Amino acid sequence: MADPAAPPRRSVLLIGMGVGDPASLTHEASAALAGVDVLFTIDKGPAKADLNALRAEICARHARPGLRVVEVSEPDRDRAPDDYQAEVRRWHTARAEVWSRALLTELGESDRGAFLVWGDPALYDSSLRILDDIRARGLVDVAVTVIPGISSVQVLAARHRVPLNTVGGAVHVTTGRRLAAEAGGQDSVVVMLDGATAWLDLDASRWDIYWGAYLGGADEITIAGPLAEVGAEIATAKQTARARKGWIMDVYLLRRRR
Amino acid sequence: MADPAAPPRRSVLLIGMGVGDPASLTHEASAALAGVDVLFTIDKGPAKADLNALRAEICARHARPGLRVVEVSEPDRDRAPDDYQAEVRRWHTARAEVWSRALLTELGESDRGAFLVWGDPALYDSSLRILDDIRARGLVDVAVTVIPGISSVQVLAARHRVPLNTVGGAVHVTTGRRLAAEAGGQDSVVVMLDGATAWLDLDASRWDIYWGAYLGGADEITIAGPLAEVGAEIATAKQTARARKGWIMDVYLLRRRR
Ligand SMILES: C[S@@+](CC[C@H](N)C(=O)[O-])C[C@H]1O[C@@H](n2cnc3c(N)ncnc32)[C@H](O)[C@@H]1O
Ligand SMILES: C[S@@+](CC[C@H](N)C(=O)[O-])C[C@H]1O[C@@H](n2cnc3c(N)ncnc32)[C@H](O)[C@@H]1O
Repeated sequence: MADPAAPPRRSVLLIGMGVGDPASLTHEASAALAGVDVLFTIDKGPAKADLNALRAEICARHARPGLRVVEVSEPDRDRAPDDYQAEVRRWHTARAEVWSRALLTELGESDRGAFLVWGDPALYDSSLRILDDIRARGLVDVAVTVIPGISSVQVLAARHRVPLNTVGGAVHVTTGRRLAAEAGGQDSVVVMLDGATAWLDLDASRWDIYWGAYLGGADEITIAGPLAEVGAEIATAKQTARARKGWIMDVYLLRRRR
Repeated sequence: MADPAAPPRRSVLLIGMGVGDPASLTHEASAALAGVDVLFTIDKGPAKADLNALRAEICARHARPGLRVVEVSEPDRDRAPDDYQAEVRRWHTARAEVWSRALLTELGESDRGAFLVWGDPALYDSSLRILDDIRARGLVDVAVTVIPGISSVQVLAARHRVPLNTVGGAVHVTTGRRLAAEAGGQDSVVVMLDGATAWLDLDASRWDIYWGAYLGGADEITIAGPLAEVGAEIATAKQTARARKGWIMDVYLLRRRR
């Protein structure tokens, strides 16, 4: 018998969809998608049009014809609040409420819901954290199943035909913001979420760089070489591409030179 | 016109096959496999039987019926040589020669060759390095195309429904041997290639652990919790499983506790 005090139960899949190329989906992911009743989509980010196009293409190939698509909108966020911590808390609460409402009103207890996540759901993606938050707040007892997807880091390495690690070495995956502080002592560093050109702040004589933007998509760009030789060229390519398309997503591997 | 001094040309695919589960293959990988004439397999490792079984299953589903399978044997290696560096060099030379001979005698210039690589070809796998070595030695001018595969790290995160990174944080991927030296200052560490129980050497009060063995396969085991509570339990589980099956492959995420 259902406990009247318990939060309502729902189950959703977080499906990694790869980046850019519908063929980078796994067979596990496409089979799971074929069983989904309601697909939730998050309305966000400058790459939204490309993300929507990839999702539409994937659904056309693999989803059941009657699939219902529900757009969950991101609550507004004050980017320059007086009290930063308070604004973050307020925004997290608002977001948990929006997601919970969507799950409760759009998904029946016996329906299968899903989110298609760009790349791999475990790498710099907030969906898992939001669903945990919803559960922790007692809003929805949501059961989550995660299906891995090919991440941008893997496409980067594949295109450049380069291993992420040196023999027996470590791989440090970090953000543009942290790069300068964390590169010391590493010999392989992967950088994501670089809104600018963090590679230009390193000692260029010490690194090779393998860079890629819009990986998996029709606009894919890759450049590689000694940082001292190609660092400036990559900065120009990034600026030009961003100006032309309105947004850019890029990732790179730095490998310490011997 | 062909340059008589140039090394002979061959082209091969390195196809990531995921770990354990044939459905973790991507559509890109299965489509590529369908076009392959000759599949090279490396005869190595204690997990060989399981790897062969997965490969056979994948080929049965996706390869063309006439696919030719060629086993490339690993040259013998002296594990306790008088001169370690000289033995490593000798072994690398022997391996490059064995691979080259296999490519030249078994693969025509217009044939498509492939290797199916466990997990992702960019993560702790030597195939790319060996093919680079063959090219650098002028033995075969081998053109390589890499197709990413789901790695054990991604299956680990999916099973535990845990992001690899904290919000805006870095992810350090390393080996069992390096863990003790590199864990300081990190808040998310992924450990691969741990032949023993490196997690037991950390300050157990500071970490949560998410552990998985034989991920993707029928024998999959997962254990998670505060390191102080589950560290010993995981060590026992690892020992028992290894004794039962004869080998083990395990990977884990350490997350610093707040
Ligand atoms: C919010 S994170 C999401 C990462 C995603 N979950 C993955 O597995 O790739 C976005 C960052 O991933 C990288 N990225 C995602 N897609 C990319 C692509 N197609 N080409 C290059 N970089 C990409 C960029 O570093 C970007 O700043
Ligand atoms: C030689 S590396 C190959 C890694 C592979 N290329 C990948 O992408 O997962 C082997 C190590 O990967 C991890 N590993 C590979 N397969 C695994 C599995 N099915 N379950 C747990 N760990 C695995 C273990 O840490 C193992 O020591």
